[in-house]
Amino acid sequence: MAGSLSRREQFMLLSLLAACLAVLANTFDGDGEPLVASLAFSGIAFASCYALVRWLGDAFMRAGFKGKDMSKPKLVEIPETMGAVCATVYLFILIVFIPFPFYKDIVAATSGGGNRDFILHVQEVETGRFLHRFPHSKLASYLSAILSLQTVVLLGIGDDLFDIRWRHKILIPAFAAIPILSVYFVDFGVTKIVIPTPLRPYFGELFDLGWLYYAYMAAISIFCPNSINILAGINGIEVSQSLIIAMLLAFNDLLYLLPPPPAGFPSPHPATDSHLFSLYLLLPFIGASLALLAHNWFPARVFVGDTYCYFAGMVFAVVGILGHFSKTLLLLLVPQIANFVYSAPQLFHLVPCPRHRLPRFNRATGLLEPSTAVFDERNPLRPVVGAVLKLLHRVRLVRVTTDPASGRVVECTNLTLLNLWLVWWGPMREDRLCLGLSALQLACGLFGLFVRHKLALLVFTQDNWG
Amino acid sequence: MAGSLSRREQFMLLSLLAACLAVLANTFDGDGEPLVASLAFSGIAFASCYALVRWLGDAFMRAGFKGKDMSKPKLVEIPETMGAVCATVYLFILIVFIPFPFYKDIVAATSGGGNRDFILHVQEVETGRFLHRFPHSKLASYLSAILSLQTVVLLGIGDDLFDIRWRHKILIPAFAAIPILSVYFVDFGVTKIVIPTPLRPYFGELFDLGWLYYAYMAAISIFCPNSINILAGINGIEVSQSLIIAMLLAFNDLLYLLPPPPAGFPSPHPATDSHLFSLYLLLPFIGASLALLAHNWFPARVFVGDTYCYFAGMVFAVVGILGHFSKTLLLLLVPQIANFVYSAPQLFHLVPCPRHRLPRFNRATGLLEPSTAVFDERNPLRPVVGAVLKLLHRVRLVRVTTDPASGRVVECTNLTLLNLWLVWWGPMREDRLCLGLSALQLACGLFGLFVRHKLALLVFTQDNWG
Repeated sequence: MAGSLSRREQFMLLSLLAACLAVLANTFDGDGEPLVASLAFSGIAFASCYALVRWLGDAFMRAGFKGKDMSKPKLVEIPETMGAVCATVYLFILIVFIPFPFYKDIVAATSGGGNRDFILHVQEVETGRFLHRFPHSKLASYLSAILSLQTVVLLGIGDDLFDIRWRHKILIPAFAAIPILSVYFVDFGVTKIVIPTPLRPYFGELFDLGWLYYAYMAAISIFCPNSINILAGINGIEVSQSLIIAMLLAFNDLLYLLPPPPAGFPSPHPATDSHLFSLYLLLPFIGASLALLAHNWFPARVFVGDTYCYFAGMVFAVVGILGHFSKTLLLLLVPQIANFVYSAPQLFHLVPCPRHRLPRFNRATGLLEPSTAVFDERNPLRPVVGAVLKLLHRVRLVRVTTDPASGRVVECTNLTLLNLWLVWWGPMREDRLCLGLSALQLACGLFGLFVRHKLALLVFTQDNWG
Repeated sequence: MAGSLSRREQFMLLSLLAACLAVLANTFDGDGEPLVASLAFSGIAFASCYALVRWLGDAFMRAGFKGKDMSKPKLVEIPETMGAVCATVYLFILIVFIPFPFYKDIVAATSGGGNRDFILHVQEVETGRFLHRFPHSKLASYLSAILSLQTVVLLGIGDDLFDIRWRHKILIPAFAAIPILSVYFVDFGVTKIVIPTPLRPYFGELFDLGWLYYAYMAAISIFCPNSINILAGINGIEVSQSLIIAMLLAFNDLLYLLPPPPAGFPSPHPATDSHLFSLYLLLPFIGASLALLAHNWFPARVFVGDTYCYFAGMVFAVVGILGHFSKTLLLLLVPQIANFVYSAPQLFHLVPCPRHRLPRFNRATGLLEPSTAVFDERNPLRPVVGAVLKLLHRVRLVRVTTDPASGRVVECTNLTLLNLWLVWWGPMREDRLCLGLSALQLACGLFGLFVRHKLALLVFTQDNWG
């Protein structure tokens, strides 16, 4: 059953592939619109990822990458770590894409003779906003981005293979961030930040963070992948949240690229590079992830594995850091931040934490219910923490069960956003839960972008616009 | 027994690590000699690889990476694919090394303000041949090299995990070559080659190969890893041949860097970049591989896996391609080329090929003997091929057994360099065989370099020297 594509799927994928290849051939021959090429590559990413996830499922299960879906009436083993396939396709596409955004620049520069001469500047070979080519120095950033992503995939596969301990595995993205940080160090090296207007009397207009800036970037890289990794556990949730974040980031990029620049403003404007760069990384990600979601959506036929969570989170971290909009990125990660803050009492063992916190499957109804942590002599709850939990119960931020005799808290729902959603809206089917959280992600993200673009001028004197 | 370091090993490794870190701290504070830093990093690569291979052995065996050594009296299972550890350490070192060869260039360039300004040229911040810094454009090549190597490791691990078919696996290095080829395309793009003097009347001085140049580079990338992969199968042989090639390449680099440049010649001379680049990639490779060899030497306590062969071959391909001395590289691979040519009749099934061709372990003597292919009705030998084998037997290039009655060839030694060596010198212990082939590799390589530097001027008008 797994392992081959239906005739209809074959037809659809081949049509998509042919159309994308035709577009590509066109862009390569003509002026070469890198953004159009990137769109075509996203289509290729979708088609290849869709087919490969199907084809490689059996091989993955034979190699031991398999797991049981605990939230289904029948426990069938399905392939695990298929995010590695999605990531490999994505990385391959990024590498093959290299000649498109950088091509013309060099053709112009080498036309004189055998060796490069830096006579023609980039501006001279540009012929429009979407034909914009990157200056050559951007190549190093682009390569360092691929390198960081590949590193996180390599370490993520290592994690899925060797079951690395929790406290080590949280640092995997930190190692993966070293390439972009190293290249940032030699390639750009600016560690000054713009101070919000209200704080300028104390810090001045620009403040040099020095090595703290690198620490900040490393923190972003550690946070994004891990925060996606802990908002996981039901079919489709890892991929759908990543897709929504990626689409919102791409939407944010388009806000910079689409409207005509204000009068008197140089075209293309200064932030074009950053946002094109971001789109080039995000479009193939969206393509490959959509294909993965098709297999991972309820009822899932494959699991994506930690590899996908690390990979997706790292894509966002890389885009945010190299595009210099990490603050905007954090606005889009509000649900992940909320989930992390909400989970913290269990992660740091203030509240006893069972091994698995994913919602409980009720075999009788076929619905998911909040899973709970039970407090007994082996897992005691400190009285003060119990009192706080009761308070949270009052404002419906958790559901606790108290012992009628002693009044002590004996059980509470596990502190994850997934369980909280079930506390709020009652038991529901796995796909409804995933849809609900996706809607939340979308709403938070859109509000975040609104804040970013309408209210940022309250604290900063200028937007990225100029 | 495996899994921990002895007290003496701990002391040695920690001393080495401390010494190297001290050197590094010095180079970073002072003028920053990248070559000295690279040496220190090689020491760190040795220490980390030595310790990690020991520590991770058990984890690899638990994850299913294990194999039996067929050439030992007792069949004990030992960890397999440990080349992945060596490669990961190496890649990590290469990434952390980035700020050293590129650092000063940028510090000088950003000293003016927040943004980069290209006012100071590289020449101005250089203070000597070994303090030479790379121009910034070299960063893209360096990153693409790391990317190609990481890709080959990722695919190599995939190969070790999924047992990819022979005809697919031969193309793994071709995929891994895409990053360097893509970057070469946008970054350098020169596809002209210098024509040897005798051929100039027909082709001119320079000949533009066009896309054939990319095909040539891809062929180099496919050949190097696979040729090392087929000269394998006894303890230590994969690592020792790679080490000798790497050392000879480094020696060749020193030939360009050490002697003072001829009078009137600009210092540093044009090939300095290429050969420093090559050294930066080779020195940590030598460090990490020496550590792996310590565990893989007879009697081996770990296997290196296909991953190591691909990785090592790709290091050479990358160095040769990006350093523009792929012809010199091929001179150093003469034993591998000979082994490939000698193996070809079996690889292409002109002569029946058993599943394993490694030398046969004689349990009675403890020595290795040539393994053989037996020809019978299921594995028939064409008469003309039999006649050729008999001819080769005469000149001692193979040993055949003929049926006394019919005079037909019924058995011949397998066509690998390892078996041929045993045909020539008789049965020997595994480590003697490995040493013998290493000596052959060294002798061929030194002769190759002699040819390269003394005789090249017979066919070319100038050496890299000027």
